[in-house]
Formats: sequence, structure tokens, C-alpha cells
Amino acid sequence: MNKLLIVGTVAFDAIETPFGKTDKILGGAATYIGLSSSFFNVNAAIVSVVGDDFPKEYLDLLEKKGINIEGIEIVKGGKTFFWSGKYHNDLNSRDTLITELNVLADFNPIVPQEYKNSDVVLLGNLHPLVQAGVLDQMTEKPKLIVLDTMNFWMDCALPELRSVIERVDVITINDEEARQLSGEYSLVKAAEKIHTMGPKYVVIKKGEHGALLFHKKEVFFAPALPLEEVFDPTGAGDTFAGGFAGYIAQSENISFDNMKNGVIYGSNLASFCVEKFGTERMENLEKNEVISRLQQFKALTQFEIKLD
Amino acid sequence: MNKLLIVGTVAFDAIETPFGKTDKILGGAATYIGLSSSFFNVNAAIVSVVGDDFPKEYLDLLEKKGINIEGIEIVKGGKTFFWSGKYHNDLNSRDTLITELNVLADFNPIVPQEYKNSDVVLLGNLHPLVQAGVLDQMTEKPKLIVLDTMNFWMDCALPELRSVIERVDVITINDEEARQLSGEYSLVKAAEKIHTMGPKYVVIKKGEHGALLFHKKEVFFAPALPLEEVFDPTGAGDTFAGGFAGYIAQSENISFDNMKNGVIYGSNLASFCVEKFGTERMENLEKNEVISRLQQFKALTQFEIKLD
Repeated sequence: MNKLLIVGTVAFDAIETPFGKTDKILGGAATYIGLSSSFFNVNAAIVSVVGDDFPKEYLDLLEKKGINIEGIEIVKGGKTFFWSGKYHNDLNSRDTLITELNVLADFNPIVPQEYKNSDVVLLGNLHPLVQAGVLDQMTEKPKLIVLDTMNFWMDCALPELRSVIERVDVITINDEEARQLSGEYSLVKAAEKIHTMGPKYVVIKKGEHGALLFHKKEVFFAPALPLEEVFDPTGAGDTFAGGFAGYIAQSENISFDNMKNGVIYGSNLASFCVEKFGTERMENLEKNEVISRLQQFKALTQFEIKLD
Repeated sequence: MNKLLIVGTVAFDAIETPFGKTDKILGGAATYIGLSSSFFNVNAAIVSVVGDDFPKEYLDLLEKKGINIEGIEIVKGGKTFFWSGKYHNDLNSRDTLITELNVLADFNPIVPQEYKNSDVVLLGNLHPLVQAGVLDQMTEKPKLIVLDTMNFWMDCALPELRSVIERVDVITINDEEARQLSGEYSLVKAAEKIHTMGPKYVVIKKGEHGALLFHKKEVFFAPALPLEEVFDPTGAGDTFAGGFAGYIAQSENISFDNMKNGVIYGSNLASFCVEKFGTERMENLEKNEVISRLQQFKALTQFEIKLD
């Protein structure tokens, strides 16, 4: 079974949407990525850090999904990273209410020996120096390195971010971040510019408007599934990235054509993530639901034009 | 050859975008619809009205494209409808600077005898009473009636609009208009509600984010082609509708599967329209360019996932 190494936050989230609000619940980029990638036949491990306030049941949940948690450091007397946010009525934008870095402030990631030769590495949203620190520990060159990041690091740590971007094969960012990183409004031009920064593949996530995969002059588009109701967008981007990386790791095929399937799986899994608060839907999702929704994606996008 | 009847404005436009501005140039919904539908093997006619200030060369242009212009009334001493608008920097929104109805104010559409049994009728954006007046003149029930409209009529003539919407098979509107007409934010719910108003098919245009085609519980998505540069969005929605209706009229097949092809052709033609100011690109577009871009749409959307 191929190894997938996931780096990112494991955290508490408190979320408010027009549909309700939660207390502190399970959250974090690596959590969503791990849950999403667990739908594929891969040997996944999370590298992260939590405080000893982090409930054992949450760690058990990840383990029960087949995710190796040896690399999740538990800091004695430390407090787990906490994020709180409130979504606007259209669910397309949100305000961050609280960010408490806590144990994340001094996080020094240690990759477990067994995963230093992972086939696929997914660097979830974290300080770029932490992302780079993980790559430094790999003893074999991974077949594919995927990086997810956000505008915060472009504002605060651009040189470090640029330096880790240079080392990855795939970058996944949203449309506004692609524009900020490239200085180009057109997403086609933005992707071209980001290619020159290192990544051979650029995935631009557009939320409810789907995702674009760019490689050289080629482009592929995965729509978001039109849903009756989006309940909570938290973690959708991480779930997308986890589905993409999990599928690629399982299939051992890093061709552009296979990456198309990866972004379809990413969109597929993200479409479930937003149906309930937090990780709830992903925790209880069954593989047959994912397969069945794949048929919906086919019906949504496939056409047969006869040229005459 | 199947007959396609087009109703809509034939007009002067003056356009300003971040890339430049034009004097009064050829514009109007029926103009864009006609140019777009001329890429298909159909017998198309426009019903509209202009003043005698309207250059003969513009009418000649439409005729040269094989469009019957017998139904374009020329009002002696009258002035042609004039619209002027300025696009914002992102090209996603615009301000209307000038609207001079002129001869459109008293427009009483007359359908030429030969087109009273048209196979497909496309009611372009106009006062809903004018749209209804055209349907009243049909001597045979058309195989398909398509209606395009905009928020302006929802604000000013909602009862008349609702009454003509009841009589059509397909409605094409943009996402904000679908929300306004239905009172639903979710486009899935909006389409469901609009179905109950009459149209069996609901097309929701999302500009650079593509278009959705709804029919009962089925949904299909046609992306917009990612472009390096959008030069002028004027007429893109009409060009989309013209491509859709032209293709359906040519193929004589009003199945949902064939309508998928229709929205792909609509997106295809619209992607050319925005590449130059006004109608310029559509005037000089060659059929082989359209076919070649169809391959790009296939590459953009088609995938092959093997389930294992």
C-alpha cells in the first residue's frame, strides 16, 4: 500500500453559519485531509501537534479511519490550536473571530521513520518553514509533493512560502490567492506565472464554482456539485486536497489524465464535507456514497457531441 | 432547413471596458443571437425594430450571414435603440450610462408570414408583452420556445413576465436573476421553483463560472472556457442563447441529452464573443474555429474514472 504523509493542523474549531453555531469541535487542515484520504487504499500518517487538552476520542477517531497518528505530538500542559470563525449569509466569505496558536507556535514537526520514504506528501496549510522542515526529513524523493497554503502566509512570510513552493509538484490555492501570488487577474495567466515559481501542476479552487487544474498549456475543470443547501464550508478545501492526494497515492499514477480524476474525487468528497457542520459528514460517510456521487459528477459534466 | 424565429433588440451600443471604449457600434440582443445562430444550418429570421439612422451596412451584414431581416421594421424619422455601459475592472459588473428606448418604445412586432410556423422561437430580452405578442402570432405550436430576460423586467413588469414565462419551454437567466425570480439563494432550489412557473428547462448563466441546465431532478453543467483575457463581455449571454437555440433548431432534437450539447455550443460561441469589442469577433468567426474549440471543451471537462 502506498504511503501518504499529511502535515497540517489538528485543532479545535468553533463555527457559526446562518444555520447555527458549534462549541469547540474537532477541526484542522490535517484532520479534514486525513478523513478525506481515508476513502482510498493508502497508508496515511498525520504529522501535527496538539495539547493535552485534546480529547483521546478524536485521536481514536483518526486511528479508526486507518490513519497513523504516531506523528501527532501531544504537548504536556499545552493547549491545542483553536480557530473560531463566522460565515456571512452567502457562505462565500467569513470573518475569523479567534485564532489561538497555542502549541502550534513552537511546532517542530517530526516525521516518523516509517514515513520518511512516503510516496506522496501533502503539505497542508501551515507556516511554510514547517512545511519545508517536513520535506527536509524525507530520505527518498516523494513521487509527488502537494502544497496547500493561504493568503495569510503570502502577507506574512512570502519569501519562505516562495522557497517551499519551489520544491513542490502541485500547489492548491483559491482564486483570490492565485491572483495575489501571481499579480495576475486572469486565472489562466496566474497559473502560467505560478508554474514558473516551481509547481508543474496548479490547482485553483473556486469554492462553489469548482476547481481548475493547469499543467503547461493544458487545463481541466472539475465543477462543484450543485447542492440544495451548503451547511458549513469549513474544511472543504482541505477535504478537496485530501481526496486529490489520496486518489493519486492509491493509483500510483501522476499523469495529467489521472490528476483529472484526482480533482473530480476532490470535488466529490468536498461536496459531502459541506453538508453538515465540521467533520460530522466525513466521519460517517460510506464509500458507496462516494461512488454513487461519482455517477452524479459524470451526469453533470459528460456530453456526446457528434460532429457533422 | 428548420426555422428559427428570433425576437429582440437590434441596436447601437457604446461600450467602455478597462481595455478601451467604442463609439456607437452595432449591438442588441437579436443581433448577437442572430450572429451566433448563423453557425448552424438553420433558416433564421429576426423580428425587431430600428430607426432610419440605422446603417444599411449593418442590415447587409445580418443578411450576408443568412439571416432573414424582413421582420426588422425600419421606422421613418425614428431613432434606433441606444445603450451605453461601462464595465468595472473585474468585468463582472457594469454600470448602464445611457438607455434611449427611441423606436423601441412603441414597438409592435410583426412576425413575417413565412416564420409563423417556426420550429424554434427565441424570445430575446425585451418587454414581456412584446415577447408574448410574438407568441400570439404563431400559427403552429413551436417545438421549442426559449425565453431570455433580465432583472429589469422583474422589477418593472413582473406580472407580465410571469405570464410569458408560463408559456415557454426553456428560460435562460443569470444567477442573480434566478435568485430574484425565485426568492431562493440556492440555485438548485431556485431552478426547482422556476420549473413550477412553467419552463421545463431552466438554464442559469453564471458568466465566467459557466452555465447550469436543470430539468426535473437532472442537472448539467457547461463551464466557461478559461481565457487569458476577456476583452468585452457585452452580448455573451445573448450569444450563448443563440448558440443553444441554433444548435437545437438544427438538430431537431429537444431531449435533455441534446440540450447538454446545446449549452456546450452556447458556451463555446460565447467564449469567442468576449474576445473582442462588440460583435467584431462574431462577425469574423469561422466554423472551423468553433469545431476546434469544441475539442478544447472536451479536454476541459471529460474524464475517465475506472471504478475498482
